[in-house]
Amino acid sequence: MLLGGAAAGAGVAALTACTPGIDETPQDSLLDVGTDTIPFFGTHQAGIATPPQAFATFVALTLRNEADAEAIRRMLQVLTDDASRLAEGRGALADTEPELARTPARLTVTLGFGSALVRRAAGRSAVPSWLKPLPSFGIDDLDDRWTGGDLLLHVAADDQVTVAHAVRMLLKTARATALPKWRQSGFRRSRGSEKPGTTMRNLFGQVDGTVNLRPEDDDFASGVWNDEGWMAGGTSCVLRRIRMDLDGWDRLDTPGRDQAMGRRQSDGAPLTGEHEFDEPDFEAMGPHGFSVIPDFSHIARARGDDPRPTMLRRSFNYDDDPVDAGDGGITDAGLLFLAYQRDVDEGFVPVQRRLDELDLLNQWTTPVGSAVFAIPPGCQKGGFIGDTLF
Amino acid sequence: MLLGGAAAGAGVAALTACTPGIDETPQDSLLDVGTDTIPFFGTHQAGIATPPQAFATFVALTLRNEADAEAIRRMLQVLTDDASRLAEGRGALADTEPELARTPARLTVTLGFGSALVRRAAGRSAVPSWLKPLPSFGIDDLDDRWTGGDLLLHVAADDQVTVAHAVRMLLKTARATALPKWRQSGFRRSRGSEKPGTTMRNLFGQVDGTVNLRPEDDDFASGVWNDEGWMAGGTSCVLRRIRMDLDGWDRLDTPGRDQAMGRRQSDGAPLTGEHEFDEPDFEAMGPHGFSVIPDFSHIARARGDDPRPTMLRRSFNYDDDPVDAGDGGITDAGLLFLAYQRDVDEGFVPVQRRLDELDLLNQWTTPVGSAVFAIPPGCQKGGFIGDTLF
Ligand code: HEM
Ligand code: HEM
Repeated sequence: MLLGGAAAGAGVAALTACTPGIDETPQDSLLDVGTDTIPFFGTHQAGIATPPQAFATFVALTLRNEADAEAIRRMLQVLTDDASRLAEGRGALADTEPELARTPARLTVTLGFGSALVRRAAGRSAVPSWLKPLPSFGIDDLDDRWTGGDLLLHVAADDQVTVAHAVRMLLKTARATALPKWRQSGFRRSRGSEKPGTTMRNLFGQVDGTVNLRPEDDDFASGVWNDEGWMAGGTSCVLRRIRMDLDGWDRLDTPGRDQAMGRRQSDGAPLTGEHEFDEPDFEAMGPHGFSVIPDFSHIARARGDDPRPTMLRRSFNYDDDPVDAGDGGITDAGLLFLAYQRDVDEGFVPVQRRLDELDLLNQWTTPVGSAVFAIPPGCQKGGFIGDTLF
Repeated sequence: MLLGGAAAGAGVAALTACTPGIDETPQDSLLDVGTDTIPFFGTHQAGIATPPQAFATFVALTLRNEADAEAIRRMLQVLTDDASRLAEGRGALADTEPELARTPARLTVTLGFGSALVRRAAGRSAVPSWLKPLPSFGIDDLDDRWTGGDLLLHVAADDQVTVAHAVRMLLKTARATALPKWRQSGFRRSRGSEKPGTTMRNLFGQVDGTVNLRPEDDDFASGVWNDEGWMAGGTSCVLRRIRMDLDGWDRLDTPGRDQAMGRRQSDGAPLTGEHEFDEPDFEAMGPHGFSVIPDFSHIARARGDDPRPTMLRRSFNYDDDPVDAGDGGITDAGLLFLAYQRDVDEGFVPVQRRLDELDLLNQWTTPVGSAVFAIPPGCQKGGFIGDTLF
């Protein structure tokens, strides 16, 4: 089943399940998990409006000192060629394990640029004003281990062998020009584990992603896609590694959890509603004169005064070896929190500022890594990702 | 689709694909990836003769100093209860995120015991002669970081959220008695990515697992299941973390790769055959008077004089952050190589000795972690894993 441009744009609706007797077309078969493809070429890069895949690996690279504009251009050309082939289930040009490429499993490769790359490629004036480290927040406990980077490779697919192979091919191509600084992997439910379109749950057990920009909505384009200069058709990506204190969360009872969020863990409904997508009523008062949805709850603080979402949130769970975290705990888990918006200072920063000032959830969540990238527009065959920079 | 005992025993044949028009029963639908279950109770523990799932996390724990037989028994009872519930898609008894348990995705939890646990639970005489660290091999470069352990939790499913949740529930139960020493995660192709029964490929690109004990074969039971004392119905597990030097492997051309293995990377066929399952002809001579399958190739050395496999190999790929490996490379990948056999000294050790003496593949593979566990038999409802020890 090939998700055409239109289908991919239509978002999760494009993923239909195999329910024999209802929609018995061949593209619904279990085996399509491996053969499905997402088109690489287009106005926008794939991997943003694409229904999220089950696995994603993010690698941030640092440019070598000697990498100049010409070297960067060459690297981006070959990365584009690799990525477009791999997305079709073909080996990269110099692929030594082409057998591993034959299962594209909805592979997408999305490239992001840090300010150093933009500056070296096109000069200081090409760097968008928002392409810089985020302001520092009181809740932050950032580790350089998970912070910054000049080039982002975001590789995602419904199959982890596919991701592993693609990441290696891309890093081999980049190696002469840039070397890995950090690498983070995250996951959601496997394809077929849940009905397409089901909102994911994070490792606190919460339904996470209910109120969000959706590719099929009118305000998606204006909220996500940038329209200025070389970035037209691109977007910005904020990647925060947010550690979740599962041991502390365990000590909280169900009402406490639900108050901290303003929604119920059980079904994701707002405390003033019955179903996940019911509109929360922030004015509703309980018997003791307090808001039913506490003013300090995560959703009350995240929403602010304007109900319209200002970013596309698209997170993945992580669950790493607690030995590396080094505090003797049994779990090192959290979210690779991803936010896409036309402008970081308009989209992400005001919300994060409000949450930084006050948010009950802060007691159990700590940002430990942070990075901002410009996601250039997509390209057509013959072009390359980043070509508008040159 | 519930894999009954018989179906699970029949191995990969139990996993059929959704091919509309051929076998249109509801259990073949894509959504079964999440709902399929593997029975927990039985003569043998699940997770060994079970068709391998897409993800596996292995956690080795160290017993606390004060953990005595009674504490161990209590821990094993609760671990059994947790595991049996989770395998059915129910939350563990004290589950704080039961919503995450509702997608069993063929979850299996397999427990293994190191010699310290067996000794503390039932005395020195209960420790099988083979339950000890492997002899040291010349090729080994073992790191304590990935070696040993008193208790093994092997948690596998077709969905990584399911694995993450189950691992946490089990570690919470064990925490009073044992703490994590190491944790390793591996993967194969996703369910639905390939036709069921397809031999997996490792990250060298090789078809890996062709000649193997198979649950449906006559010699499986005698090769894998132990029949002595408290271990009757159990087996032994050797878990080696074997780093694969992908950069070095890249410098080798296709004929070089195929000679090192004695099989073709492209299709897994022996150099003397045409198809993956053709019997290799170790006597066949090439034009220059050398064996077509080199005497020093991996398959010639691994086979030895007796063609019958002596172990069940059941490996997972790993692809971790090379930053942690600390050598400035772009990849830290390899195999979590798992071998199950009735007796380690009869099954694994003689083969590893031969490979240690001579094996062309050694140039690109390095064991960096090693552990041996007794896998006790399964149990019936009301019993618990390890109850034959008490
Ligand atoms: C580990 C950290 C976090 C967790 C566990 C978390 C979890 C959640 C959950 C469960 C919801 C309710 C369901 C939904 O509408 O998606 C939510 C809503 C939201 N979150 Fe977070 N979140 C985290 C961090 C953040 C951050 C860092 C931001 C942005 C700076 C953010 C912005 C939002 C927004 C804008 C909403 C929608 C609020 C509305 O109803 O208008 N969250 N989050
Ligand atoms: C990273 C390390 C290793 C790699 C990449 C590897 C790869 C392979 C491959 C591709 C085959 C041929 C296909 C097949 O029959 O499965 C094979 C066969 C085999 N390997 Fe390995 N292997 C590794 C380590 C080991 C170890 C440590 C052992 C046991 C000590 C072992 C034992 C065997 C056996 C018994 C066979 C079947 C030989 C026969 O044809 O009779 N391998 N291996």
